[in-house]
Amino acid sequence: MQPTDRWLLPEGIEEALPPEAARLETMRRQLVDLYASWGYRLVMPPFIEYLDSLLTGTGNDLDLDTFKVTDQLSGRMMGVRADMTPQVARMDAHRLGRDVPERLCYLGTVLRTRPESFAGSRAPLQVGAELFGHAGAASDLEVIGLMAETLRATGIDDFHLDVGHVGIYRGLVAEADLAEADERALFDALQRKSMPELPGLLDAAGVTGELRRMFLELPELHGYRDVLARAREVLGRGGEGIAGALDHLEAVADGLERRLPEVTLHFDLGELRGYHYHTGVVFAAFLPEQGRSVAQGGRYDDIGRVFGRARPATGFSADLRELLALQGPPAALGGIFAPAIEDDALVHRVAELRAAGERVVFELPGQAGDAAAMGCDRALIQRDSGWEIESVAAE
Amino acid sequence: MQPTDRWLLPEGIEEALPPEAARLETMRRQLVDLYASWGYRLVMPPFIEYLDSLLTGTGNDLDLDTFKVTDQLSGRMMGVRADMTPQVARMDAHRLGRDVPERLCYLGTVLRTRPESFAGSRAPLQVGAELFGHAGAASDLEVIGLMAETLRATGIDDFHLDVGHVGIYRGLVAEADLAEADERALFDALQRKSMPELPGLLDAAGVTGELRRMFLELPELHGYRDVLARAREVLGRGGEGIAGALDHLEAVADGLERRLPEVTLHFDLGELRGYHYHTGVVFAAFLPEQGRSVAQGGRYDDIGRVFGRARPATGFSADLRELLALQGPPAALGGIFAPAIEDDALVHRVAELRAAGERVVFELPGQAGDAAAMGCDRALIQRDSGWEIESVAAE
Repeated sequence: MQPTDRWLLPEGIEEALPPEAARLETMRRQLVDLYASWGYRLVMPPFIEYLDSLLTGTGNDLDLDTFKVTDQLSGRMMGVRADMTPQVARMDAHRLGRDVPERLCYLGTVLRTRPESFAGSRAPLQVGAELFGHAGAASDLEVIGLMAETLRATGIDDFHLDVGHVGIYRGLVAEADLAEADERALFDALQRKSMPELPGLLDAAGVTGELRRMFLELPELHGYRDVLARAREVLGRGGEGIAGALDHLEAVADGLERRLPEVTLHFDLGELRGYHYHTGVVFAAFLPEQGRSVAQGGRYDDIGRVFGRARPATGFSADLRELLALQGPPAALGGIFAPAIEDDALVHRVAELRAAGERVVFELPGQAGDAAAMGCDRALIQRDSGWEIESVAAE
Repeated sequence: MQPTDRWLLPEGIEEALPPEAARLETMRRQLVDLYASWGYRLVMPPFIEYLDSLLTGTGNDLDLDTFKVTDQLSGRMMGVRADMTPQVARMDAHRLGRDVPERLCYLGTVLRTRPESFAGSRAPLQVGAELFGHAGAASDLEVIGLMAETLRATGIDDFHLDVGHVGIYRGLVAEADLAEADERALFDALQRKSMPELPGLLDAAGVTGELRRMFLELPELHGYRDVLARAREVLGRGGEGIAGALDHLEAVADGLERRLPEVTLHFDLGELRGYHYHTGVVFAAFLPEQGRSVAQGGRYDDIGRVFGRARPATGFSADLRELLALQGPPAALGGIFAPAIEDDALVHRVAELRAAGERVVFELPGQAGDAAAMGCDRALIQRDSGWEIESVAAE
C-alpha cells in the first residue's frame, strides 16, 4: 500500500473536519435542548453489547447489518450497534422499569456492515426520540410533532409526511392464513411495489374472492386523506384488526391536521417499511421531489417483551449528517490572535476574553502563519493604554 | 440464557441513563466551548477505519487493544478506534495539511478489547486536544495549561502534575547501543519499577561503568524541581539528547511555575508511560492519594510521517466518565406538567414555555403517574385568567 492510500476511509464511513464538526455540534445541542423541552431525557446506549441483547426481537435485517466481534473476556459474541432504538427499548424495559410514560432521546454514531442505499452511509449519526408506555394516538401524535420540530430546528420547513399502518397488511395476512413462504413472497413483491407479480403469487397461495381483491387493491390505497374513506369501503370486511388500524389512522390524521396544518399528509396503506419491527402506525418525512425520507418512525409495541417487560412504544429517528447536508454553507469562524509575548497582563486579558466566550488563539514562538492564517479576524495589540483588540485583514 | 440475563452488558462496557447522560452532555458542552475559546477546533474522527490507517506507527499495545472486523465491501480488515489521537494526527497530516500550527480537539467513545486496569472501562469517553506544528516548550505549556483548565471546568481543583521526558531513557539506550531483546527486558523492569532486576539485566546486556550507574539511578530521579538539577549531575555525560531533554524540561518547569503557581509539580525521569509512542515531554494529572492519573498527555512528534507529513505534535486526553465520577450528586430535573386536554390556548402556551427553555411534559390520555411521577415540580392549571403555572407537591 502506498503512503497516500493510508488515509482512505472505508466506503460509506465519514469523518467530520472542523467546519462540519462544529455545525454538527451546534445541531446536536439544538436537538438535545429541544427534546429536553418536551420532556425527553437523554440516554447514551453502549456502543457494543452482547449479540443476544442487541438483536433479540429485531429481525434478520439488523443481524446482517451488525458488525460482530468476539469478547476476549467472556468468549461471547458482541455486536456494534447498528440501530439505537432497540437499545433504548431495553433501557426502558429493564434499567428504568417505570410504569408511567417514559420519554427518552439519543444521539450517536451507529455502524452498519452495508449501506442502506447505493453510496449511502454506513456510519449515520442517528438522532431520535422514543415514547414508551402509551398505546393511543396521542403518543404517536406527540412523536410525529417532535419529528416535525426536529426538521424545523435544523432549517427544514418544506416537507410532507407519509403515514401508513402495518396492521392493515398484517390483518389481511391473518385473514388469509398464509403459509410462511407464500407470505414472504407476497411481502417481497409488495415492498418492491411489483404489482404484476401479485396475481400469480395470490394464485399460488390459494387466496381467492374478496380477500384476493383486497390484497390486489392494497398497493393502490395511497394519496391524500380520502384514501382512508376509500380503505373503509375496500377493506371493510377485512376483519377487526384492519378496522382498528383505520380508526387509529383517522385519529392520527385528525390530530396532525390540527397540529401541523401547514404540512401535507400522504397516506400509503401498502407501505411496509419496517414491517418486521413495527406494529402499528408508521410515518416518514420527505422533501419535495426526493425519493428518500429524511426522518422516519412508527409504533413498535412490546419490543421490551424479550427483556421481561412488554410496553407500548412509538418513536422516530433521523441521520444528523443527512440533515446537515441539507443546510446552507457555514459561517466564518473568526477570533482574536494573541502575540507570543510573555506578559502577565496579556495572559490575564486572554483569560478574560476566553471566559466571555471569545475564541483567542495564542501565537507560538517562531510559528508560520499570521492572524488571518489562524482563522482570526482580530488581534491583541500592545498600546500605551494596554492590550487592545484591533481588526486585521482577512486571509 | 434467561430473559433476566439479556440486559447484562459486557464487562467494562457502560451505558448512561438519564441523570448521568445529561451531566455528561453538560460537561461535553463546557469542554468543547472551553477548547473553542482557546482556538481548538472540534473534529469527529470515524468510529471505524482500515487497520493500516488506524494502527500505523502506534505500536503493539494499540494493536492488541483494537477490535477487528472484516469489511464486507472491500474484504480488508478494519479496526474500531481504541484511541483517537492517531486519528486526529492523520487528519492534521493529510486532510488539513496546513503549514501553520493546527489546534484540534475531539470527544467520543473509544473501544478497547481489554480494560486498561483491573475492573477498568473498555469504552472510555475520550476527550482531548492536540497542537500540531510547533516543537518548542510553548506548545507543551499551552496543552498542559488547557489540561489544567479541563480539570477545573469539571470541578477538579486539587491535583498535581507529574512531568517526565522519554528522551532521557531513549538517550541512555542509544548511548549503550543495546540489543533489542536487552532493551525490551530493561524497559519492562523499569516500567514495573522493579529495581532489584536492573543490575542483572545490565550485566546481561554488558552495560558497565558510568552508563550502568546512570541506568541504575534513573528510577531514583523523581521528586520536586530539584530533581532536574540532580539529573544534570547524574546524567551530565549521558549525551546530547539527554542534555536537550533536560533543557526542554527546565523550560516547561519555568512556564508551569509561572502559569500554574498553585499546582504542585513532580518530576519523574524514569517514567516510561507511552514510551513507544511519545517522543518528548510526558505529563499526567493526579488527584491526592490516587495512584491513577485523571488526564495525561505528551509530545509525539512526527506521528504524521506515515501519512506523508511529519509534524511536531503535543496533546492530552482524559476520560469524561472518570471526570464525571469525581463530581458530586446531580441536581433535580424539574419541569411543568401539561394536562391531556385538547385546547389551542394550552398548545400555544406550551410551545412558548418550551421555546423559553422550560421542560414541559404533556400528560397522555389515561396515563399512569401524576406531575411529580413525571419529574415535574409545576403544572399548567386552567383558571379563569387562562393557563397558569402552579407548584405541585414533590414525589
